[in-house]
Amino acid sequence: MNSKTNIIAKIGIVTVSDRASRGEYQDLGGPAIHDWLAGVLVSGWEAVSIVIPDDKAILENTLVKLCDIEKCCLVITTGGTGPAKRDITPEVTEAVCDKILYGFGELMRSISLKFVPTAILSRQIAGIRQQSLIINLPGKPAAISDCLNAVFPAVPCCIDLLEGPYLQTDEKILKAFRPG
Amino acid sequence: MNSKTNIIAKIGIVTVSDRASRGEYQDLGGPAIHDWLAGVLVSGWEAVSIVIPDDKAILENTLVKLCDIEKCCLVITTGGTGPAKRDITPEVTEAVCDKILYGFGELMRSISLKFVPTAILSRQIAGIRQQSLIINLPGKPAAISDCLNAVFPAVPCCIDLLEGPYLQTDEKILKAFRPG
Amino acid sequence: MNSKTNIIAKIGIVTVSDRASRGEYQDLGGPAIHDWLAGVLVSGWEAVSIVIPDDKAILENTLVKLCDIEKCCLVITTGGTGPAKRDITPEVTEAVCDKILYGFGELMRSISLKFVPTAILSRQIAGIRQQSLIINLPGKPAAISDCLNAVFPAVPCCIDLLEGPYLQTDEKILKAFRPG
Repeated sequence: MNSKTNIIAKIGIVTVSDRASRGEYQDLGGPAIHDWLAGVLVSGWEAVSIVIPDDKAILENTLVKLCDIEKCCLVITTGGTGPAKRDITPEVTEAVCDKILYGFGELMRSISLKFVPTAILSRQIAGIRQQSLIINLPGKPAAISDCLNAVFPAVPCCIDLLEGPYLQTDEKILKAFRPG
Repeated sequence: MNSKTNIIAKIGIVTVSDRASRGEYQDLGGPAIHDWLAGVLVSGWEAVSIVIPDDKAILENTLVKLCDIEKCCLVITTGGTGPAKRDITPEVTEAVCDKILYGFGELMRSISLKFVPTAILSRQIAGIRQQSLIINLPGKPAAISDCLNAVFPAVPCCIDLLEGPYLQTDEKILKAFRPG
Repeated sequence: MNSKTNIIAKIGIVTVSDRASRGEYQDLGGPAIHDWLAGVLVSGWEAVSIVIPDDKAILENTLVKLCDIEKCCLVITTGGTGPAKRDITPEVTEAVCDKILYGFGELMRSISLKFVPTAILSRQIAGIRQQSLIINLPGKPAAISDCLNAVFPAVPCCIDLLEGPYLQTDEKILKAFRPG
């Protein structure tokens, strides 16, 4: 493995919400992601958190900066994945990625479908920009942990394959899978 | 919610079939969709039904007209989703849509897979053109109700998010889900 | 049916692997596909097997040649479906195909997910180039038979719809489904 075991992993957390960015309501999605990661990761990491409106250019600039300048190995977004006019997170994610990992969206929707029939309205995807994995999560805090519980066991292996830092999880809470 | 409760919902029903459009056999798919909707919807609606050949330009014109001129909040197609040369419904749907809702195709294929292994040959998708939701269904009448039963619980909420008319279903038959 | 019952089916088997193509290790994926097909098919067929590096131009030329010149009704690839920089099989497959059959990738990932959480890292797809069905499989030999067992029941019907040769399977081992 080329993964680096001594590097602090930078993880971008992006809340995409017109109303949260204007302060009209409190951002709950970003902190929910932060808390989930803090409860699971035992290797060193630091968060780069940001709250932005549902704006294509701003989201694109944010994702590019987190990947290319901040060198985040992982960027997680929350919000903007629905069918409404202002929801543009998945298409911007697709536009900045070199590769799309269809399985993330498929698995997250199939998990969310067990709770709500409207899971099929979520267009969330995941993809890779150079050495960064970008994952879209829905906006609802309840759905955030369901989705992360489902996909995160594959995330450390993916970041290994991108030659990023070696993420370690608390195995009592969530076991990362690395094929032997 | 911005949804309008007093507006009659227009729903487009498009049968895409060379043979049905030439009268070589009776269109069964379109009437199957109409009957399913008539059995489920209790709010006011009217159908705009049309039978066309498997022709890219004709399907594209039909979808654009149903969305932009007729102002259908929902357009449902049947036929043309397979792997054969003349099957072009999904690519034309993708071409006229602003957003693709991957979850509809995923769910419909996973449901159809319980009945026939060839469900994976169906390329059906759903997407949004401005304020209209377009859903592809397979051509076989038996598969039409399986697919509508699976995805329709999410349709009224989707049309709410597109600021369309407020669709109500007979809850004894099919419960529309609207997150609280 | 337009399928031809007396034609020997040509099936392309493409191992995409830098290391196997340099002889640094033995190609296990290609032979695993060949052995699986030999155990299942009872109609006449012949393999066109090739081992190539993870190179976009070489894979593109290989797929085009197998479809357009060799007239393979089916081309199966193994390898190059992961998230790493050199993994380019799905994007090249998409580039040479006229239609994508999303259901193949969805089903293969959902089957592989029962064995390994990292199945969501596999970007494998299937698609059609003119009269040829192209299917990506993962690189790991163990996953190859899991994936073929899942999707192959739909393959003979797909090749019928593309007007290719009539594939017959040993029904004691795997039953091909052809809707009546």
